[in-house]
Amino acid sequence: MEQFGTVAILGVGLIGGSIGMALRSERLAARVVGVGRSLQTLRQAQERGAIDQATTDLDEGVRDAEVVVVCTPVDRIPRDVCRAAAIAPGGALIMDAGSTKRKIVESVEADPVGCGPFVGAHPIAGSERSGAAFARPTLFRGRACVLTPTPRTRPEPLERARDFWSKLGANVVEMSPAEHDEVLAYTSHLPHALAAALSLSVPPAWQLLAAGAFRDGTRVAAADTGLWTAIFRDNRGPLLKALSSFQDRVAALKYAVMTDDAEAIRKWWDEARQLRDLYDDRQAPRERDE
Amino acid sequence: MEQFGTVAILGVGLIGGSIGMALRSERLAARVVGVGRSLQTLRQAQERGAIDQATTDLDEGVRDAEVVVVCTPVDRIPRDVCRAAAIAPGGALIMDAGSTKRKIVESVEADPVGCGPFVGAHPIAGSERSGAAFARPTLFRGRACVLTPTPRTRPEPLERARDFWSKLGANVVEMSPAEHDEVLAYTSHLPHALAAALSLSVPPAWQLLAAGAFRDGTRVAAADTGLWTAIFRDNRGPLLKALSSFQDRVAALKYAVMTDDAEAIRKWWDEARQLRDLYDDRQAPRERDE
Repeated sequence: MEQFGTVAILGVGLIGGSIGMALRSERLAARVVGVGRSLQTLRQAQERGAIDQATTDLDEGVRDAEVVVVCTPVDRIPRDVCRAAAIAPGGALIMDAGSTKRKIVESVEADPVGCGPFVGAHPIAGSERSGAAFARPTLFRGRACVLTPTPRTRPEPLERARDFWSKLGANVVEMSPAEHDEVLAYTSHLPHALAAALSLSVPPAWQLLAAGAFRDGTRVAAADTGLWTAIFRDNRGPLLKALSSFQDRVAALKYAVMTDDAEAIRKWWDEARQLRDLYDDRQAPRERDE
Repeated sequence: MEQFGTVAILGVGLIGGSIGMALRSERLAARVVGVGRSLQTLRQAQERGAIDQATTDLDEGVRDAEVVVVCTPVDRIPRDVCRAAAIAPGGALIMDAGSTKRKIVESVEADPVGCGPFVGAHPIAGSERSGAAFARPTLFRGRACVLTPTPRTRPEPLERARDFWSKLGANVVEMSPAEHDEVLAYTSHLPHALAAALSLSVPPAWQLLAAGAFRDGTRVAAADTGLWTAIFRDNRGPLLKALSSFQDRVAALKYAVMTDDAEAIRKWWDEARQLRDLYDDRQAPRERDE
């Protein structure tokens, strides 16, 4: 077993904690070291079984690591990756788990040291809840994990990154950092923006008459402010494109409703319903696994 | 027990079926008669325990009813209510369960016969699934049910309507039909429209990389096309207002992202997050009941 030696996790929140729990429950690592800013938070992660050891000293945490996974907020990832690359042993694999990729990969590749052992990664799993308290070892099982190799990515760390996420149960998908950001702008950042916009649209006094559609449609608006501010800023261009495309769909409905065009409303809804049914059909095998 | 004598349910789908199951499981009715267009569908509802008897003949179904609940699509409700009022015994209570109220109540009140025994009702409970197969006796428990009395509503049927929904476990709320439609445009019709618009915005090939935010944000887009076309048409004015208000929120985010105004993005998200937290806190006791 113990295929990854010492694994260091920088930022032991929901994602980092779940990685640690998965590694430990499957005995995939000799040792999981958690690195964070607060020893108290790290102790909680340790009590939850997410890490074997805790340290607030990045250098100490990554010194013996064969694998480093940087799970800090997107605006801190490049710095943390480059620092870890400067300290970790030769041959180490360094990955991130950030929700955006283009800027992160560009920043890291601008650094000759950071670049060598780095593979950009984004496990598409999560929750509106933050913190290791919500981590679970099965978080990545059956979920996609996008790796974003570039011409500068070296084959050995890439191969080990594929192996790492596969062993955590994820389906590994590869694409360029720019393509990742374009797709995720639609499949994740847009839905988050809409959840927040919907939450803002309903006067508090009316929440008591909110239907399940409101509850589900706003769920992710409970997510962390700093995290999502950083993601929106980081992925500006694609997010603006996705928002515009969405606005066009809303405008089409408004026009159909304004002109009371029953056939247009019907077609609009029916296409949406069919796309949603398609998603459900594709999702079904994954849900059954849970 | 048996407080409501014979209850006729017109349209035994998710809502009508759940009413029947609740009445029967609590022994609140001497007999529950299901009225529908398809005998096969009614037989399924009967097998599921939602009704005691089935008929496709509206007149026969309501002839002995002390209470009639019209659960047909919003565009058919006024006609069904007036027909039931013409046939049901004197002193019967006739209610609907439609998602919109102003046009329905106006139509019914334009009919001297329909008007007498009628109380507009909207239990705020449901699902993207249709049909008695998804009905359950606890659907209304802890949920709001809006009654929309007008100056023409008579006190006895109103009092019986309050009693009826309370006995099904709902929290009865009263407001005018117009106020109901304005509130529900924001709390239900808007979230449904957004779910469909989001479903339309994501290219099918990218669905495989969709996060939980997409799954939850599009859930209700799986709902029935005819049902939602009718609701959107029926509640045009308030829906257009809600869509415009929502568009303003999206435009504010777009501007903040376009100008890379970190503080504006942060404030925008934070306000949304706080509103969502408020909703969650208010929801908590209800969720615990389930």
